[in-house]
Order: sequence, then C-alpha cells, then structure tokens
Amino acid sequence: MAIITIERKVLEKNDEIARMNREKFTRHRVLAINLVSSPGSGKTSILERTLEHIRGTVPLAVIEGDVQTDLDAQRVAKYDVPAVQIITRGGCHLEANLVRDALEQIDLATIRILIIENVGNLVCPSNYDLGEACKIVVASTTEGDDKPLKYPSMFRNASVMIINKIDLVPYLDCNVQTLKQNALSINPALTFFLTSCRTGEGIADWCEWLKAKADSLPS
Amino acid sequence: MAIITIERKVLEKNDEIARMNREKFTRHRVLAINLVSSPGSGKTSILERTLEHIRGTVPLAVIEGDVQTDLDAQRVAKYDVPAVQIITRGGCHLEANLVRDALEQIDLATIRILIIENVGNLVCPSNYDLGEACKIVVASTTEGDDKPLKYPSMFRNASVMIINKIDLVPYLDCNVQTLKQNALSINPALTFFLTSCRTGEGIADWCEWLKAKADSLPS
Repeated sequence: MAIITIERKVLEKNDEIARMNREKFTRHRVLAINLVSSPGSGKTSILERTLEHIRGTVPLAVIEGDVQTDLDAQRVAKYDVPAVQIITRGGCHLEANLVRDALEQIDLATIRILIIENVGNLVCPSNYDLGEACKIVVASTTEGDDKPLKYPSMFRNASVMIINKIDLVPYLDCNVQTLKQNALSINPALTFFLTSCRTGEGIADWCEWLKAKADSLPS
Repeated sequence: MAIITIERKVLEKNDEIARMNREKFTRHRVLAINLVSSPGSGKTSILERTLEHIRGTVPLAVIEGDVQTDLDAQRVAKYDVPAVQIITRGGCHLEANLVRDALEQIDLATIRILIIENVGNLVCPSNYDLGEACKIVVASTTEGDDKPLKYPSMFRNASVMIINKIDLVPYLDCNVQTLKQNALSINPALTFFLTSCRTGEGIADWCEWLKAKADSLPS
C-alpha cells in the first residue's frame, strides 16, 4: 500500500509540472505532441518523414527521449531543426520535469510545433502527462492486431493512432481492420493514419492533420 | 533521491522472493526461463512453437504475464500444458511475488521446464529477477538493428537472444549481422537463435538448446 501512495505522489508532482509545461505551450501558441509506441514501431522514422514534409512550411522543434544513446537525435540532426536529447539512463518513460528542463534549450517563441518522442514502451509512458496537447500512438503492423487489447491504457489515452509499416501487410498475419476495431473498442474517439515510411504512403495526410491542428490553436 | 531509496527497497524485497523461487526450482530440478521482449516481437508465437515441439518429450508448464486480457493464456491452453495467467492490471513487468503466487497452481514435481512469458516491455522487466535460471530476450527483425544499443540493460541481463521474424528480412532495412554485433557489444556472452514462427526455421535448434539446458541441471 505504501508503494501505491508514493506512486500517487510522484504522479501528482508530475501532473503539476505538466500543467506548467502546458501553460507555457499555450502562452506561445505551440502545439506539443507526445509520440509513443513500442520499441521499433517506427517513431523516429515517422518523425524524419514528418520533418522532411513540414520543415520550411511550419517551424518546429524536437525533444528526443531515449533510455541510452543519442542515435535518434543524430538521425533528427540532419533535418536542421532544433533538437534536444534526453537520456533517461534506464528510466522507462519521460516525465514532465525532464521536458521542462529540455525546454530551456528551445525558444518556443520561434516554433509552432514541438514533437516529443518518448521512450519506446507501450506501458509506462501512458501514465505520465508531459503537458502535451495529445498523445500520438504508433503501432506497427508487424506487432500484430491484438496490441490495443493487451496494452489498453496507451490506446485509451491517445488521440491519434498511426498504423505504420503498412507496406509489410502482405507478408504478415496482421489484419488492419481487426487492429482498428480492437483500438476503437478501447477508444472510440481515435483518429487513424495508415503510413509507410519506406513508400511514403500516408505521410502527407498525417502532416496535413498536424499542421491543421497547429493552425487551430487559439491565438 | 527519496524515490531511488524506495525503488531500492522494492528491488531488495523482490530479490529476496526471487531467491526463494530459485531455491524452489533447484529443489525440484526445474529449469525456469524468463521470456522478455517488446510488445509484438513474437514471444507467444515462439512459446506456441516451443510447446508443439517439446511437449510429449519433456513435461513443462507456462506462466503468462500480461497487462490486461488472458488472450495469451487462451493461445497456450490448446497445447494442453499447465498454464497460469497473471494479469498485472497496468503493471509494466512481472515481479517475483506474482510468480511465487502463480507457482501455487503448478506442481513443480511433475515438470522439468517452466516458461515465464513476461509483459511486453524492453525496459522494466530487465530489473526484476523472478528466480529464473536465465532471461531469453526475443528481438524481432522488424524492430530494426539498433535496439540492443538503445535498450542495453535487457540485452546485458539476457543469456540468449532469439532473433525472430527472420522470414521478413528481405522486406526490411534490418541487417541481422549488425543486430548481432550491436547485441554482442553490450553482452559478448549472448547465445543466438534465428527463428521464424511462420516457416518454423530455427525452432528445432532453440528447443534442442532448451532441452539440453534442462538436462544439464544438477540432480
């Protein structure tokens, strides 16, 4: 029981800092999204395709969360957008205070979209508000169509589900309709995008949604 | 700092129960393995192929760990081996006390191998000893070849790495040699198996290793 109490305190403290991050985003009219998924679902690849598609039209910045290494920040660096790497050193999720600290390196007045790539983990990041406008969950077709049922919290807390690696469906037993239905049974309000970072399928639709969402923020 | 102290206490208590589980396995000469991976890497499929291959020759039992649903236990049930489902209700990893409780449902005197399938999570389960003889990490080729570098703790603590979905390599950018080299740079003692649950490739080799390991336990 002691552990539950402590966990609640940790979450309360996190929520407080997340609120301050959110106020900061609102004040600067920045759309912040929290990109979450299993390891290897293609979060960084989607981020790269998004940067290719959007930079030049909308100014954006990236916060990279990783357990270890700055490999992802290196991948992002070549797109010439402001990027900050958080290394959690074993930590299984980002917390609001880490994002708050990273924000000291980013001039929010000069950007419109902030993409936060969380640690690859379909469980723990679902509990931690970072102050984002919405969570975007990436699920790869290679993970099978049962994942929303088995890891419901993440799909319940997300606003958008990107179904990635759609080019591999012919070689898999994954049924995309079943995957969508399973996700909707957990969260009927989900918006879907079907993408392939290899063929580029679906990236434009996703980027248009993202830009429209940023444009719709109250000024 | 307070959180770290508490976490240490939780781990110390876990290690104590894990020690008792391990003594129990030793006393009954049961090989217990802890199957860990990202969600959707194919742990349950490997388990199913393993049960098909081994049952009838070596008596075994299964403990299924899931955040939610007993879908995996249902898949295992049709192989007619003793199986216990642990549902963590949001918990991101199995702990030794959950395994201890599950063991009340399993007659260790009648089995030789216990396969514990952990929650799909490449971070947190690496810290929790369940009393197993070894951790077996499953990495799917679809997750890319950089995962051992990005999630080192799991690969450091595993004895065996099963590289699964090897049939999909022609359609991916994953280089299996790079994946192995990255894993070996974290843990030079790793033993590898390359498997496909669709074609059956590599399953026999893995099962032979498992049976030999069970045979080699001191009587």
